[in-house]
Amino acid sequence: MKIHRINPNKRWSDIVVYNGIGTFTEVADSDTSADIKGQVQQIFEQANTSLELIDSDNSRILAITIYITDFNNLDALNEVWDEYFPKNCAPSRACVKAQLADPEYLVEMTFTVAAGDKFKS
Amino acid sequence: MKIHRINPNKRWSDIVVYNGIGTFTEVADSDTSADIKGQVQQIFEQANTSLELIDSDNSRILAITIYITDFNNLDALNEVWDEYFPKNCAPSRACVKAQLADPEYLVEMTFTVAAGDKFKS
Amino acid sequence: MKIHRINPNKRWSDIVVYNGIGTFTEVADSDTSADIKGQVQQIFEQANTSLELIDSDNSRILAITIYITDFNNLDALNEVWDEYFPKNCAPSRACVKAQLADPEYLVEMTFTVAAGDKFKS
Repeated sequence: MKIHRINPNKRWSDIVVYNGIGTFTEVADSDTSADIKGQVQQIFEQANTSLELIDSDNSRILAITIYITDFNNLDALNEVWDEYFPKNCAPSRACVKAQLADPEYLVEMTFTVAAGDKFKS
Repeated sequence: MKIHRINPNKRWSDIVVYNGIGTFTEVADSDTSADIKGQVQQIFEQANTSLELIDSDNSRILAITIYITDFNNLDALNEVWDEYFPKNCAPSRACVKAQLADPEYLVEMTFTVAAGDKFKS
Repeated sequence: MKIHRINPNKRWSDIVVYNGIGTFTEVADSDTSADIKGQVQQIFEQANTSLELIDSDNSRILAITIYITDFNNLDALNEVWDEYFPKNCAPSRACVKAQLADPEYLVEMTFTVAAGDKFKS
């Protein structure tokens, strides 16, 4: 069975898929000065792109771990979050407070997802 | 291969199973005023229920990530923990300090488990 | 399908493999007084040993979650990190700040890896 690495560089691969399951981590890439809603929106847009690259979509997200820097932002995060998943397709979720590598980052999310069929072997 | 979501709502699914592997996250549900031992006991009771829902049991836990709010509670956590797993069935474990969404929560645990056979397809 | 547990004790198993995928967590075992580079080197040496135990190697690491106690150490961590992975074999990576169980630990890493063929059943 093949390990599929999308955009590997010396430090990380943007996505890794093995045995039909993909993993990727997102922080806001385009505008780190955005507020929490803006950062969550960027993360989900980036996730959509990542999912498409492995023939998947937002109905096939298995689990997300949310690292949030300030729980005062959780309600606003949830507002964007609750709109994102198709009906009956929300993932398992863990949510903890953690400081992140860039002080402007307000949230980082690790996604575990079901990839498309061609990534199963 | 099917994605199995147990009790999906708009924000999360209690358990997600794919490719025979289940994921769920637990915090003390019934009494958040309990001390660390009480919260760990609640988490393991809830985990037993979750495991049963996917035809599994506490001999089939693959990995747990422990988020604990205060390492002074770690010895007490370990006392309950060490009694929980059947002989030779302890999981891989990570344990880090993190603040949690409800200030009463003392610990949150993410479980990765082997589901029962009927969840393999 | 069998659950493979390497060195199980009552608290954890050093490695757990299921469905061809292994999980293990490493902190510096031999010298916790080492600086960040020394601790990262120890972690990768330990990972090499763990990988060998499941017929794998450092070209088959799928994902790593890094828990670092101080982001001032991140550049030094990356120096060792960038040398470790074979070309085009870097994993998906998450990196958050967290305090660890032993105050001397500067970093803890959770590895998800592809095990060797004999661990697939």
